[in-house]
Amino acid sequence: MPDRPSTFAASGVVTLTTDFGLKDPFVGVMKGQLAARFPAVRIIDLTHEIPAHWPAEAGFWLARSFRYFPAGTVHVAVVDPGVGSAREIAAIEADGHLFLAPDNGLLAPVADAAAEVTLRHVAPGTLARLGIHAPSATFHGRDIFAPLAAALAAGRLQPDELGSPVDELVPGWIDEPQVAAGQVNGTVVTIDHFGNLITNIEPWHLRGIAHPVLRVAGREFALRRTYSDVRPGEYLALVNSFGVVEIAQAERSAAEGLGLARGAPVVVVAK
Amino acid sequence: MPDRPSTFAASGVVTLTTDFGLKDPFVGVMKGQLAARFPAVRIIDLTHEIPAHWPAEAGFWLARSFRYFPAGTVHVAVVDPGVGSAREIAAIEADGHLFLAPDNGLLAPVADAAAEVTLRHVAPGTLARLGIHAPSATFHGRDIFAPLAAALAAGRLQPDELGSPVDELVPGWIDEPQVAAGQVNGTVVTIDHFGNLITNIEPWHLRGIAHPVLRVAGREFALRRTYSDVRPGEYLALVNSFGVVEIAQAERSAAEGLGLARGAPVVVVAK
Amino acid sequence: MPDRPSTFAASGVVTLTTDFGLKDPFVGVMKGQLAARFPAVRIIDLTHEIPAHWPAEAGFWLARSFRYFPAGTVHVAVVDPGVGSAREIAAIEADGHLFLAPDNGLLAPVADAAAEVTLRHVAPGTLARLGIHAPSATFHGRDIFAPLAAALAAGRLQPDELGSPVDELVPGWIDEPQVAAGQVNGTVVTIDHFGNLITNIEPWHLRGIAHPVLRVAGREFALRRTYSDVRPGEYLALVNSFGVVEIAQAERSAAEGLGLARGAPVVVVAK
Repeated sequence: MPDRPSTFAASGVVTLTTDFGLKDPFVGVMKGQLAARFPAVRIIDLTHEIPAHWPAEAGFWLARSFRYFPAGTVHVAVVDPGVGSAREIAAIEADGHLFLAPDNGLLAPVADAAAEVTLRHVAPGTLARLGIHAPSATFHGRDIFAPLAAALAAGRLQPDELGSPVDELVPGWIDEPQVAAGQVNGTVVTIDHFGNLITNIEPWHLRGIAHPVLRVAGREFALRRTYSDVRPGEYLALVNSFGVVEIAQAERSAAEGLGLARGAPVVVVAK
Repeated sequence: MPDRPSTFAASGVVTLTTDFGLKDPFVGVMKGQLAARFPAVRIIDLTHEIPAHWPAEAGFWLARSFRYFPAGTVHVAVVDPGVGSAREIAAIEADGHLFLAPDNGLLAPVADAAAEVTLRHVAPGTLARLGIHAPSATFHGRDIFAPLAAALAAGRLQPDELGSPVDELVPGWIDEPQVAAGQVNGTVVTIDHFGNLITNIEPWHLRGIAHPVLRVAGREFALRRTYSDVRPGEYLALVNSFGVVEIAQAERSAAEGLGLARGAPVVVVAK
Repeated sequence: MPDRPSTFAASGVVTLTTDFGLKDPFVGVMKGQLAARFPAVRIIDLTHEIPAHWPAEAGFWLARSFRYFPAGTVHVAVVDPGVGSAREIAAIEADGHLFLAPDNGLLAPVADAAAEVTLRHVAPGTLARLGIHAPSATFHGRDIFAPLAAALAAGRLQPDELGSPVDELVPGWIDEPQVAAGQVNGTVVTIDHFGNLITNIEPWHLRGIAHPVLRVAGREFALRRTYSDVRPGEYLALVNSFGVVEIAQAERSAAEGLGLARGAPVVVVAK
């Protein structure tokens, strides 16, 4: 992959996305390290409730969220079942934002979503130059990712100093929807707080289908504009505010109502 | 309603109160939009665990919390079952603070609690002037409330530029306690993290009752000063630190102990 | 205890550790008071999910977390079953950090973990000088700890102005591991978000044991370096990133797998 000139100009903002939860001090000490190395850092939590050891969801949300943050933001995502093993650390520069994560497939959706992308592995020498010696074997969020992010967000380290570009990263965990014969086969990627079923189907997947209806759990739902287009308790499908199709039940939980969970298949056909 | 001269002087602080939970990136991207439009913003979460689609609790807590924030704070509350429908956006200027929420009854307790209050609906032209075009139909927190709050917190937009004053907003969802014949009939508005039963009864409701006792779930509790006035496991009633009567069980959960939930009736009588 | 010269130089950072949860506005209004009294404060949540009324866990995590924050940080911990009773407010200056908590044993692990320690009780006159009058009987986090922390973090109040040094604080709630006859008897202090069993056993407890194995729930586990040293689903023990022994199940929950909870005994013997 050719080395594209960096357009990253640090905003001082760092976002955090992890599967750490908020029960323990894991997220807090990451923030402590960020503040210790870059006192003016502004930290925004994206979420810490990614399902444990399931990097796919972190990448899914990051890819659909990063454009709402200031250009020059450093996005740190740590869902890391392989912590302490030989896995690489991935860095992506994409459309003026910078992403750091274990190279385990987490960042694949980000690379797919962005127009201008440079992929890197963080070189071991980079860590040494930042004074990162003897990190723990089990908490790289605190011992490696936070110091890296602090240096990048402070503008003391440039993306092209992280390591040489690489051609590819570990691929993503979720298959793209299959589009064939006037039909789209997608999947429920996650259930949100309201019980809405969030799929990986985007509007462009539906282009060839004149009047698309969603089939899920033996039922069919037409596409609507918003929740209040139906009465409380009724189901609907819609393209949500993150640009993917979701199935909802107005003022209720579609996941409970339909008895569905992450991974459920969703088919779109013509009415 | 006459247009009272604004006394709002932006502090740069924005509080957020929603029913979004912290599992998904909804709150994070709202903060991203705030930071993108006002880099010096200081954001404080009031809570994101309001029961889904239940604006009454958001207003209840906001009305009892806002005075602990700096004067000039912008309080954004989004509990919005009608998102995307024709409902208005309400803005209240009250005692030097500013409140933004869907006009669905959420802000009624704030208007009741403040001395100097100006009510407004946000005019469509205001959104256009701020460069808010084509918001999503399902996520006004990110697409409308965050940009509005950023402009107000930055001092780029004044409250009286939001729209003309209106005489009233949609009324609140919870009835005020009934005071009659030496008796007060109130309700449990919420259960807190400790299992304390938080009512809507305030000390002034009890003025006519010499030795008030609370009747709830077939039991009677006298008013005490604090939890440690009784032994662990014992029940008590008290005027809590937010100025409302609560029923507690020292070092235990009164909600579990008494088998009560939100909406339970509470009666106060003379002993 | 002699009055050691203070080396505390405020960084402007305040950490918060409580059992308040995030459901109610308790944490939010504490932050409101911090921001109202010290607008430049930078607040970092350590955790608000300490088990209700169990100060021991707050102290355990604080003692193992504080060094990851900037020197000059004010650490506020409020787990306070005795709020409103005659209990003192404890302040510890330790290795350049400052800690405030109810004097109920919470801070004992911090005092044990630090090299240079000065213990104090906050004198009533200190509160009056800060304009803290008539605090509520039930929410000292908002009414006493936040104003104290704001003044200390802003550098307006020095640690030695809090009150005179005292010789000791209320002792901690968790017994130190017993080391005797080539055996260590410790305990599970907490279960983390991933279901790892976190013990109070530190590497130095194991010095006299050549090939230590952990016995818990009728099983034996050797010490490994990191989770990925075993296959998913296998158990292991390791010294974790906070310097204590934990029992884990790779990519699973050891707590669920072994059916263990907080307080479970753990024995280390030679293989």
